[in-house]
Amino acid sequence: MVERTVFFLSDQTGVTAETLGHSLITQFSAKNFRQMTLPFIDTEDKAREAVRTINAVQEQGAPRPIVFSTLVQGEYRAILKEANGLHLDIFDVFLEPLARELDEEPSFEPGRAHGMSDIDAYMKRIEATNFALANDDGGMSRNYDVADVILVGVSRSGKTPTCLYLALQYGVYAANYPLTDEEFESGKLPDFLVKQKEKLFGLSIDPDRLRQIRKERRPMGKYSSAQQVRFELRETGKIFRRYGIPNVDTTKFSIEEISSRILDSTGVERRVRP
Amino acid sequence: MVERTVFFLSDQTGVTAETLGHSLITQFSAKNFRQMTLPFIDTEDKAREAVRTINAVQEQGAPRPIVFSTLVQGEYRAILKEANGLHLDIFDVFLEPLARELDEEPSFEPGRAHGMSDIDAYMKRIEATNFALANDDGGMSRNYDVADVILVGVSRSGKTPTCLYLALQYGVYAANYPLTDEEFESGKLPDFLVKQKEKLFGLSIDPDRLRQIRKERRPMGKYSSAQQVRFELRETGKIFRRYGIPNVDTTKFSIEEISSRILDSTGVERRVRP
Repeated sequence: MVERTVFFLSDQTGVTAETLGHSLITQFSAKNFRQMTLPFIDTEDKAREAVRTINAVQEQGAPRPIVFSTLVQGEYRAILKEANGLHLDIFDVFLEPLARELDEEPSFEPGRAHGMSDIDAYMKRIEATNFALANDDGGMSRNYDVADVILVGVSRSGKTPTCLYLALQYGVYAANYPLTDEEFESGKLPDFLVKQKEKLFGLSIDPDRLRQIRKERRPMGKYSSAQQVRFELRETGKIFRRYGIPNVDTTKFSIEEISSRILDSTGVERRVRP
Repeated sequence: MVERTVFFLSDQTGVTAETLGHSLITQFSAKNFRQMTLPFIDTEDKAREAVRTINAVQEQGAPRPIVFSTLVQGEYRAILKEANGLHLDIFDVFLEPLARELDEEPSFEPGRAHGMSDIDAYMKRIEATNFALANDDGGMSRNYDVADVILVGVSRSGKTPTCLYLALQYGVYAANYPLTDEEFESGKLPDFLVKQKEKLFGLSIDPDRLRQIRKERRPMGKYSSAQQVRFELRETGKIFRRYGIPNVDTTKFSIEEISSRILDSTGVERRVRP
């Protein structure tokens, strides 16, 4: 089967076009999409260059490409339409009904999404990231009073990337604390965590999956043995039940999904929006 | 002016609806949108609950809400359409032309975007995140041989969050190295960086903005003084020119934009896609 190219065109980062396009193409089984992002198309030259890139694909005998685009400026959108492909343009489709509803003309200024329009949002995300780093793995500051949420779970259950994602994407202050032998032997959480009980959120994971992840780090030894992994997860379950800690099984979820489920379940507010 | 509510509905995380909707509403000047995400609408009960939430807004006398939705399953989409609002549904609009083009029926299975469909992608993002953490701030592993890119710049120019974003979003291996007095006095980069010259990418920043950011951390002293900040940025500029390091001014950009510009400028390939 010949590879089909999917283009994501944008006058900005291309994140919106990528996210939208990815949602849609995953509805189709064809696994051999070649994905290509052409960001920052903000001059006539760049628009014409993009047209050449898109048309070059078909000259190589491939099926006509699919083109997701989120360009704001009509002038460059018109140029891009000259490219041979299936054009799916979110501004074409949604801007007009939105303008009618809001009784206002769109600004047609590029770069207001994902832009630095909001320095405050930038600072919040940076500060949340610093918080996550300083409060990672039970370490350093344990500044749990200002945390929005404190993730608990065994080593490699996904705590660190989830905390960083919550910080970068939503400006949420997420700390994490690893459950280790200390907790498993006593069956108890340390007092400084019990005091923050309503902020705790658990990450659980399937034993086989955890072994697989741990083996990437340390292939041999107790750390990734079936027995140890089962023991840790069994004891973790007891602790979650003992303290009534809400939790999510991370086995089948991406970092985005784990993060969304935490926000949804805890009701923690996003401090910034993507 | 009465607040207008914008809903983002999804049977998954809501990230796609949020990203799309945010791109569109930033085209309008109204600043007082109230944004609300209703994720994981994957049962009839949850769909009916969402309808109640949406309708409740108008009962309070507010203008009718704008509803961005990315639900896959027709059954729940039909229920949600009963809610009073301006519905902008990306699946309604784009799925049909895409199906025709690909000559294939969509699966209508929720959760294939942002899903754990790809364990390999999850692992890549986790590993890239661990790499960024271990190679942050010139520290620890300095495992630059396997880096895709090495960011250089002064303290607080945005290196750490950018590296973490590149890792989490794209699975890119991004290290960073801070420029400090050592480099400024000699005017030179250390040999282990010069050896990786083609991987270096610089972050520059406006002096006033850098002062503002540094003051958040340490309000007093040399670190955030006008003189020091100007000195560091002047010397940084010399080093960028001496070694021909491509660079981006982070002053006006969000973390997404800085990241996209780095990928665009260096040609580093995304290892995973959002």
